[in-house]
Amino acid sequence: MSEGGNKKRIRLIVAYDGTNYQGWQLQDNGNTIEHELNRALSELSGEQIQVIGASRTDSGVHALGNIAVFDTGSRMPGEKFAYALNQRLPEDIRIQRSEEVAPDWHPRHCPSRKTYEYRIYCAEFPMPVRRLYSYFTYCPLNADQMRRGAEYLVGEHDFKSFCRTGAQVESTVRTVYSLEIEEQGPELVIRICGNGFLYNMVRIIAGTLMEVGQGKRTPESVKETLLAKDRAAAGPTAPAHGLTLVKYELDL
Amino acid sequence: MSEGGNKKRIRLIVAYDGTNYQGWQLQDNGNTIEHELNRALSELSGEQIQVIGASRTDSGVHALGNIAVFDTGSRMPGEKFAYALNQRLPEDIRIQRSEEVAPDWHPRHCPSRKTYEYRIYCAEFPMPVRRLYSYFTYCPLNADQMRRGAEYLVGEHDFKSFCRTGAQVESTVRTVYSLEIEEQGPELVIRICGNGFLYNMVRIIAGTLMEVGQGKRTPESVKETLLAKDRAAAGPTAPAHGLTLVKYELDL
Repeated sequence: MSEGGNKKRIRLIVAYDGTNYQGWQLQDNGNTIEHELNRALSELSGEQIQVIGASRTDSGVHALGNIAVFDTGSRMPGEKFAYALNQRLPEDIRIQRSEEVAPDWHPRHCPSRKTYEYRIYCAEFPMPVRRLYSYFTYCPLNADQMRRGAEYLVGEHDFKSFCRTGAQVESTVRTVYSLEIEEQGPELVIRICGNGFLYNMVRIIAGTLMEVGQGKRTPESVKETLLAKDRAAAGPTAPAHGLTLVKYELDL
Repeated sequence: MSEGGNKKRIRLIVAYDGTNYQGWQLQDNGNTIEHELNRALSELSGEQIQVIGASRTDSGVHALGNIAVFDTGSRMPGEKFAYALNQRLPEDIRIQRSEEVAPDWHPRHCPSRKTYEYRIYCAEFPMPVRRLYSYFTYCPLNADQMRRGAEYLVGEHDFKSFCRTGAQVESTVRTVYSLEIEEQGPELVIRICGNGFLYNMVRIIAGTLMEVGQGKRTPESVKETLLAKDRAAAGPTAPAHGLTLVKYELDL
C-alpha cells in the first residue's frame, strides 16, 4: 500500500479507555496509545509511521476525542483510515474519525479549545461499574463551595501553582474559558474548558477543589493559591483514572 | 467469630461489574458473584456460608443493587458486614448496604419491584469507555418508534414470547409497570420496571425493540408478538453486557 513520493497528512480523532495503558507517549517499557497507533498504522500502510499527538495524556487517563496526525504515501482516502485502523486496534482504542489535512497542519501549533471532565463518585461505598472512570471518596463534598472556589480560576491566569514541579514550559499562563461543577446523582463532575493545560493542571485543580468541597480550605484560598505561583500552595494531584479528555475543538 | 446457637439472617445489597464473571449463580467451573460472596463470608465468619440471591443475573450482566441473604451465628451487627465484606471482595463487587432481617425473610418470596436498564451506544464507531456497559450498533435507531412498540408491553401480560425456550417457570405472566426509552447523547437507554422478569426477558425485549427502532418490524408487531406466546415471534436476545439491574425495591 506504500507509494513513496508525495505524502499526505491524515488527522485522527482517537478515543480510548486509558485503564490498561501507560499513557499516550511512547516509553521504553509499557504499552502506550501512541505505540498501538504506530503499530496499527505501520501494519496497514507498510510504512514506518510515527503519529504526533495533541494531548499526551498520563497513564490511566481516558479520552473521547484526542487528536493525532501522521504522514503517509498511501493512496487510501483520508476518511477510510478510521475503518481500516479500527480493525487493527485493540477494543479499548477506537478512531472516531479520520480525514486529510494540510501537509503543514500540526495539532500542537493550532488554536484549540480542550474540555476535560474530572469525575468523583461520592458515596459510602464504591460503585463497581464506575471504578475505572470516577475517583471514589466517602468524604462528602459541598458542590456550592467548590463552585465558589472554581470561579477564581476562570480567565487568563498564571497557573504555575497548578503545574507539576519540574515541568519545562515557556509560559505557565493559560486561559480557562469555563469551569463547571455538575452533580449527576452520586457523581460530581468538574468540567473545565481552556485553551491549553499545564502538566497535571486539571488533576491539581480537581485535588484542590475537592479540599474546598471537604471544608479543608476556603473557596477564597483558591485565589491565594493562584497568586502564590507555587505548587506547594495547591492541593494534591487527584488520581488519573477520574480524568477524561472529552472534547478537542480545532481550527477555531 | 462463629458462635453457633441462634442464627440471624443478614440482607446484602450487592453491586458488581459483571464483565469478569460467569454470572451470579454457582457453577462447576467459572467464577461467579455467588462464589465470591460465599468465599468472603466464610473467611469472615469461620462458618460455611451460602448466600441466597434474589436475581440470578447472567454472565456479563451488571448490577447496582442486587439482593442476597445469608444466615450466620456471628455476633457482628448487621450493618457492619458491608464494611468487613468489602475488604475481602475483589474491587468489581461491592456491598452497598447490609442489615439484619427477620429469620424467615426470603428475597424471592417477597413482593418486589425491579428496574433494569438496557443501554445501546449508537454511533458510527464504538466508544471505548462505554464498551463494557453498552451494546454498540452503527444502525440508526428511531426512538419514537421504539416508544410506540414499548407501550404494548406495559401492564400485566403473558410474556411467554419474551422468555428463553426451555426455562421452567410455573407462570409466564408478569407485570411491567413502566418501559421508558431515553436518549442520553449517543446512548439509548431502555428502562423497564416490573414485578419480576422471566429468563432473558429484558434482553429479548431489548432485541425486539431494537428491530422496531431499525425499521425491521413495526411498533404494532410487538402486540402480535405478545399474543403469539411463542419465543420465535420475538426478536433476538440482546447481548448481556448492555444490561444492568439498577434498582431492587423490596417490602412494598
